Amino acid sequence: MAKDEVKLLGFWASPFALRVEWALKIKGIEYEYIDEDLMNKSPMLLQYNPVHKKIPVLVHNGKPVAESLVIIEYIDETWKHNPIFPEDPYEKATQRFWAKFADEKCQSWMFSTFLKEGDELEKAVKEARENLKTLESGLKGKFFGGETIGFADVAIGWIPFWVSLTEEIVGVKLVDEEYMPLLSESFEDIPNMEILKERLPPRDKTLAHCRQFRESLLSAAAAAST
Amino acid sequence: MAKDEVKLLGFWASPFALRVEWALKIKGIEYEYIDEDLMNKSPMLLQYNPVHKKIPVLVHNGKPVAESLVIIEYIDETWKHNPIFPEDPYEKATQRFWAKFADEKCQSWMFSTFLKEGDELEKAVKEARENLKTLESGLKGKFFGGETIGFADVAIGWIPFWVSLTEEIVGVKLVDEEYMPLLSESFEDIPNMEILKERLPPRDKTLAHCRQFRESLLSAAAAAST
Repeated sequence: MAKDEVKLLGFWASPFALRVEWALKIKGIEYEYIDEDLMNKSPMLLQYNPVHKKIPVLVHNGKPVAESLVIIEYIDETWKHNPIFPEDPYEKATQRFWAKFADEKCQSWMFSTFLKEGDELEKAVKEARENLKTLESGLKGKFFGGETIGFADVAIGWIPFWVSLTEEIVGVKLVDEEYMPLLSESFEDIPNMEILKERLPPRDKTLAHCRQFRESLLSAAAAAST
Repeated sequence: MAKDEVKLLGFWASPFALRVEWALKIKGIEYEYIDEDLMNKSPMLLQYNPVHKKIPVLVHNGKPVAESLVIIEYIDETWKHNPIFPEDPYEKATQRFWAKFADEKCQSWMFSTFLKEGDELEKAVKEARENLKTLESGLKGKFFGGETIGFADVAIGWIPFWVSLTEEIVGVKLVDEEYMPLLSESFEDIPNMEILKERLPPRDKTLAHCRQFRESLLSAAAAAST
């Protein structure tokens, strides 16, 4: 294993690169992190992910793997120690189900709330909260697998941090103790886990990045409507 | 294994239920197929997939698994014989990558072509063809894994049949030998594989079903624009 060369092409503010880093950290795998300039993508990124031209890409001994959840499965299957998945196929399926649910239903609140006002914003917030409430129904305690962090937790672990940024920028409440007590507790704990915390991007810098992102969305929407 | 009780809740014209059936056939697993009335979903479906309320759902000894690709992974991990996935983690990741690509990029042509005309239709067809051409780049011969049918092939195996229905209904060409020779050949072979063919729905009935679906989309679009 000493001969393994592991590189991760990421972007500092990307939750998808972040969750791959968490998987590598949980496994204790050494890797070289390469931050991409997404406005001027490197030849290496274009070579290693010609289909999507997107980060994250894991390059293991010169062979690229793309798509964050596919990468995490690859990491867990390649290095057997410190398993991210449970062994039982039914438990594995459950973890995959919730990771997929989160990717499909609990990602859009940032885009959907950033551009809306009044009734439309209220509707978007209501939908986001309902989806987060459904996500909560998958928790079996602190984590989706009970007391141990697993695939679904690594997949959704970015949400608390970005939810709190969105709440601050838009001035809404997406997660609260009363409506989703379990998720709320989990969302407080996850970003504070040592193994995850050390790779979370700085809050102020990410907040500024998200504000700028919102501005560009608003400008694009304004340009499209004129 | 004789004690296993396997049920599949599906819908006769659903490609997503179909691919789960193919996985069960490849494995040689006996199962009871239950066709759902999607306009009047059964209490069993609502009980077993409360999150999405959608087919397919596999019920194995009373425990439900939802989401077609998650189900296929579950089937392959539960019954080890006749593997659908290769053993090598890198090859597995490649199969998952292409299955995901197909689900994200090669599903929308039916919706996008059914409602469009003129320049917009031309644009939708061009995009669909480019995505199918990209999909072709993943083929390593007849299949995504070379000479043996695997996860990605089972995942995309429904596309040829539905492409041909769309081509007939809309009067466009999505797949052709000249632009995508490998995919075109694979698309001719896959639906003719004995193990897959026996569960393909009747062409005429499915064509009528798709035409009706298009009519309902057009009516809905007309109602929305008045």
